[in-house]
Amino acid sequence: MPRHDTISFLSDYGHADEFVGVVHSVLRAIAPHAHVIDISHDIPPHDVRAGALCLVRSVQYLRPGVVLAVVDPGVGTSRRGVAVEVGGGESVLVGPDNGLLAMAVSMVDGADRAVSLTNTDLHLPAPGATFAGRDIFAPAAAHLANGVDLLELGEEIDTVSLLPGVLPVTSEEDGELRCEVLWVDRYGNVQLNVDPDEVEAWGRRIQVVWEGGSRTAVRANAYDELAPGDVGLLADSYGLLAVSMPRTSAAGMLGLDAGAQVRLRRVDTEGGAADADADSGVTTPVELGRRN
Amino acid sequence: MPRHDTISFLSDYGHADEFVGVVHSVLRAIAPHAHVIDISHDIPPHDVRAGALCLVRSVQYLRPGVVLAVVDPGVGTSRRGVAVEVGGGESVLVGPDNGLLAMAVSMVDGADRAVSLTNTDLHLPAPGATFAGRDIFAPAAAHLANGVDLLELGEEIDTVSLLPGVLPVTSEEDGELRCEVLWVDRYGNVQLNVDPDEVEAWGRRIQVVWEGGSRTAVRANAYDELAPGDVGLLADSYGLLAVSMPRTSAAGMLGLDAGAQVRLRRVDTEGGAADADADSGVTTPVELGRRN
Amino acid sequence: MPRHDTISFLSDYGHADEFVGVVHSVLRAIAPHAHVIDISHDIPPHDVRAGALCLVRSVQYLRPGVVLAVVDPGVGTSRRGVAVEVGGGESVLVGPDNGLLAMAVSMVDGADRAVSLTNTDLHLPAPGATFAGRDIFAPAAAHLANGVDLLELGEEIDTVSLLPGVLPVTSEEDGELRCEVLWVDRYGNVQLNVDPDEVEAWGRRIQVVWEGGSRTAVRANAYDELAPGDVGLLADSYGLLAVSMPRTSAAGMLGLDAGAQVRLRRVDTEGGAADADADSGVTTPVELGRRN
Repeated sequence: MPRHDTISFLSDYGHADEFVGVVHSVLRAIAPHAHVIDISHDIPPHDVRAGALCLVRSVQYLRPGVVLAVVDPGVGTSRRGVAVEVGGGESVLVGPDNGLLAMAVSMVDGADRAVSLTNTDLHLPAPGATFAGRDIFAPAAAHLANGVDLLELGEEIDTVSLLPGVLPVTSEEDGELRCEVLWVDRYGNVQLNVDPDEVEAWGRRIQVVWEGGSRTAVRANAYDELAPGDVGLLADSYGLLAVSMPRTSAAGMLGLDAGAQVRLRRVDTEGGAADADADSGVTTPVELGRRN
Repeated sequence: MPRHDTISFLSDYGHADEFVGVVHSVLRAIAPHAHVIDISHDIPPHDVRAGALCLVRSVQYLRPGVVLAVVDPGVGTSRRGVAVEVGGGESVLVGPDNGLLAMAVSMVDGADRAVSLTNTDLHLPAPGATFAGRDIFAPAAAHLANGVDLLELGEEIDTVSLLPGVLPVTSEEDGELRCEVLWVDRYGNVQLNVDPDEVEAWGRRIQVVWEGGSRTAVRANAYDELAPGDVGLLADSYGLLAVSMPRTSAAGMLGLDAGAQVRLRRVDTEGGAADADADSGVTTPVELGRRN
Repeated sequence: MPRHDTISFLSDYGHADEFVGVVHSVLRAIAPHAHVIDISHDIPPHDVRAGALCLVRSVQYLRPGVVLAVVDPGVGTSRRGVAVEVGGGESVLVGPDNGLLAMAVSMVDGADRAVSLTNTDLHLPAPGATFAGRDIFAPAAAHLANGVDLLELGEEIDTVSLLPGVLPVTSEEDGELRCEVLWVDRYGNVQLNVDPDEVEAWGRRIQVVWEGGSRTAVRANAYDELAPGDVGLLADSYGLLAVSMPRTSAAGMLGLDAGAQVRLRRVDTEGGAADADADSGVTTPVELGRRN
């Protein structure tokens, strides 16, 4: 009896090749009843962190069922393929055990059970070891949707042995909030790992400092509250603070990429960093590096 | 009782982020019976005109039901979200009231009724105001597919208050036809806002003049009727005149973009503009600007 | 009575325009029961060879049913539109008769029957002749899914009259294996038209020579068996030999594109080409051209 009617599918396969279509075909061959929702397939190639963040942003909106996620630079090596049950069996996440699934698993209160996908009877025969999405993960996801028990997919593993994903945390130092760019979206909005509450008491203007410059940003609720050229700080649609510019790419204008280190400084209160050149836009000697 | 079984979905969300997948998930959560057809999600960011033209090209081929369209640079401001009923209730278009829907609504004989999406009971709770596609428009579309009455979505508004979309019209001046590039497609075909009938009596050759140059184009019915390097004028698949080159991008070769102003001149009849340098390809002093 | 429940769809339509969505809408209007799987729509515009290779890589994984494939630079000319029945009627391929379908047809043991899509009663009325995917091929595919007999679509044609697709073959000359790049995937893996068995006895190191340089490559089973900077030769997921580099694009690093001519030379056995500058990376005088 079918158990899950939705398979949500994320990967770094892109759309130029047939990878996504072939995985859909494999899913449909095994579990024709299942509805497949493509989350995104344009995760940058091999970028496990970007895939994990995309998954964690999506997870609270996904349908209960199976989540198939493949960003897998270590395919064919000893890294494990896993299936991780969450929510008392309501959902199962399938993918490589390389940190891709970990933050999403944490977000839904952690793993109940997990297996390593070692039962080769449930794999497709493969001429090469490089397309585990087609040969191992998609069949596993489809069999789970069909009601195959988790423990039939392979040997059970300790959930604490799953590779964790690490969301960077902010720190306060010298009155500054040290944070990091998690994500730049299609519109060039720059999501920081900052809860808006952390700067709620800082007033309307906040200085944003990064390796390439600094700008005074204005707290706002919508992009079009900002005047052209303004830099805004908004609570984005995921509830995190984002650096945005109206109808233009803040990331492009400011030179900010995912992984960049950023400092936020008070402007409107005494002891703030506001001064004549706070908005100069020229490179200030900030020693922070860019990771990744 | 479900009322509409198809939701056609257009946006400028792109595929790099999870926006499209999250909206699909929200639609499926509320209206699991509905089949979602993606029209396109690669409208250039914030380009309401390009989205409106894409929608109007598609609309006569879409299934009756709900059309969900989101290109929404003013998200979170006072611009209204609307649902517009057309065709005696056969279909409903849902999206921002910024001109995106207007040409498509006109194409199907205008709006019967419209509401502003003010009933927040039918919105998703949202941590920020920037993703109305997920939080307001998708739920509205899904509830409509489920048979929820239009008037439950919010207060009825006068259909004449909807922001109109303006399709540029051609004009004749000094024997020339002044027109505009509506669209450049993937193959580099350059669609003009010209009905082929307007130049039917002009003969086989027509001079095309734009800010960057001029070329004599040949009327044709298929791309491969043209010799390599030829510039052709064809009735395209939407019944409008398009500037095309065989197996190459006319837009790229000629430097033509959406919004460019173009003049068509007679060549084959007396009083035509044919002369020795008509085909020079060098920049001629044409004073027309390019509107965006 | 519906005959086929899956339509697999490949094209060069891209995602920026509404072409894919409009074809989906046409398919659903005629055959609402059919499930459409998108193989890929990002075949480079007009690149029939790339489309044919994508289809042949996919075909063994596709569901039985209808395959709709459109890469059609000759649209509107005398090239035929065809439907080709294979597998004793289990599947039908629909598209232009320009070589796009031929390799896939061969892969599944050849054509049983074929028709030219000349029955205009089953076409959509079209304002122009340039979008046969929408007006001719999609309706044909949908009617076939509905159970319409192949011979109702048009006049039967001799299957030997179908334009063949030609997969380049390797040749041995002066102890070298002369081969060709079939495909570069999203990750920059460079697929050659070489069965790994052809070089099985050559040992662990093989010299790869092309117009722009030469490198000694290492046989491997997984990308991550290679050290950073290494060039590997792997059996890829389709069972062909591919030139790969770990977590980077071999195609980009080595300057290899689809269609490039490549020579493989023995290194580890006597008579091999190994010498001091085999790995120089500088351009060696290789007279092979690049086709296409």
